[in-house]
Amino acid sequence: MSASPLPKAVVLFSGGLDSSTVVAMAQQQGFEVHALSFRYGQRHVVELQAAQAVAKRMGLRHHITVDMDLRAFGGSALTADMAVPKGAQASPDQSGIPITYVPARNTVFLSYALAWAETLGSFDIFMGVNALDYSGYPDCRPEYIKAYERMANLATKAGVEGRQRLTIHAPLMAMNKAQIIQAGVGLGVDYALTSSCYDPGPQGQPCAACASCQLRAKGFAAAALDDPLYTRFGLPQPPAV
Amino acid sequence: MSASPLPKAVVLFSGGLDSSTVVAMAQQQGFEVHALSFRYGQRHVVELQAAQAVAKRMGLRHHITVDMDLRAFGGSALTADMAVPKGAQASPDQSGIPITYVPARNTVFLSYALAWAETLGSFDIFMGVNALDYSGYPDCRPEYIKAYERMANLATKAGVEGRQRLTIHAPLMAMNKAQIIQAGVGLGVDYALTSSCYDPGPQGQPCAACASCQLRAKGFAAAALDDPLYTRFGLPQPPAV
Repeated sequence: MSASPLPKAVVLFSGGLDSSTVVAMAQQQGFEVHALSFRYGQRHVVELQAAQAVAKRMGLRHHITVDMDLRAFGGSALTADMAVPKGAQASPDQSGIPITYVPARNTVFLSYALAWAETLGSFDIFMGVNALDYSGYPDCRPEYIKAYERMANLATKAGVEGRQRLTIHAPLMAMNKAQIIQAGVGLGVDYALTSSCYDPGPQGQPCAACASCQLRAKGFAAAALDDPLYTRFGLPQPPAV
Repeated sequence: MSASPLPKAVVLFSGGLDSSTVVAMAQQQGFEVHALSFRYGQRHVVELQAAQAVAKRMGLRHHITVDMDLRAFGGSALTADMAVPKGAQASPDQSGIPITYVPARNTVFLSYALAWAETLGSFDIFMGVNALDYSGYPDCRPEYIKAYERMANLATKAGVEGRQRLTIHAPLMAMNKAQIIQAGVGLGVDYALTSSCYDPGPQGQPCAACASCQLRAKGFAAAALDDPLYTRFGLPQPPAV
C-alpha cells in the first residue's frame, strides 16, 4: 500500500520575504505546495528570478508563473512608467493609499489561485498578506480576506455541492516583520535568496531606500539579525530608519 | 460649459447574445460602456471576432481584449483538448456541473473588470449571467454575485474610504432567453452578429447542436422570432428541441 498523498495547497509566491516564509509554513503544516507566481508587467521582474531560486532551494516541484498584463489598465507606479518613490510611501491623493498600489491586484491573484486550486482538487490557498505592515493596501486586510473566502465558497463546484470548504490562509496577518523573519529562520528559510525591493539592481541588489527595503531593514534590526541578502551582495547592512 | 461626462461602466463582453444585450442595457441606462473581452485559450476564438463586430455596430469606443491563459490550469472542455459534448450538457462526475465549466472563470473575469473599473474611476460592472439558464455553473448564481460585490467593496480604495459603492449589475439574472432576446430586439441589438456556439465553424457558423446553440434556438422559438444569425449564413433555422 502506498502512503496517502499530502493535501495540496496553492501558495501565492512572489519570491519575497513574506511569501517565502509562507511556503515554509505551508510545508510544515503538511501540505504539498503548488506555488503560483505572476509576470504582470512589474518593473521588478528580477523578483521572478528570486522566486525560481527560492523555489529550487525549498524543493518545490510544482511552481508555475502565469503571464498577465495589468499594464493594459495602467494606474500604478509598479506597472506604469513612473518613478518609484523613495522613503515613506507617497500617496498622490491624500487617501493614505500609496501610488505603488496595483488596482485589485490581490483579487486578481487570488482568482487565479482559486482556478488552479479547483483544477488540482485543493481546498487551501495561502498568501503572505499582513495587516500590521500593510502600508495602506485595502486588499491586505482581514475583512477583505474573509469576504474573498466567502465568495470563493460560492464560486466553485465544491461550494455548490457542500463537499468541502475552501480556506484562504493568511498566516502572517497578525505578525510584524521581525516575527515573520524569526519564524522563517526557525523553518530554515534562506532569506539571502529573497527579493523585497521595489526598484532592485540588475542582479537583484536591494536599493535599501524604497519603502519595502526600509520595512525589511527595520524587521531584521528588530529581530537583531543581519539580513543575509546584503551579505550575499557584499553590501553593508542597511540603516533601519 | 461642457456637458457633464457620462458615468463609466465596465461590461464583461464576449460577443455573445447575452453580453451584447447587456451592453445595450448599460448604454440605455446612461453609462459610457467600457467593454472587456478575454482571449483565454478558448476553442471558440471566433467569438472574439464577433465581439469586435458587435462592438463596432454598437458604437463602442472603449473595447479591450485581455490575454490570459487558463490553459495552464487545464480542467475544462472549453480550454483543454477535449471534444465538446453535443446535446444536453454532460457532467463527468454526476455533480450536475457540465465539463464545459471553466474553473473560477467568472471570478477571474470579474477581478479583471474590478481592476479596470478602479483605474477608470468606475463603480459599475455589468455582466450577462443568468440564473434560470445557468446550466449548472456555480458562479452564475445571485448569491455568488452578491458575495463578489461585497468582497469587491472591501478590496478597493473607494471601499476603504467609504466614498462610493461598487455595484455588480446582472440585469439578465431573472430573465429567460426569450425575454432577453425580446429586450435586446427592443434596444436594437443586431443578433446576426452575435456568436453563442461552443464549437462554431471557421466563419462563426453555429453548429446548431451544442447546448449553447440549443438554448439560443429555444429562446428564439419562444420569442416567435427567427434567429438572424442563421439567416446571415444562409442556414435553415435550427430545430428548438
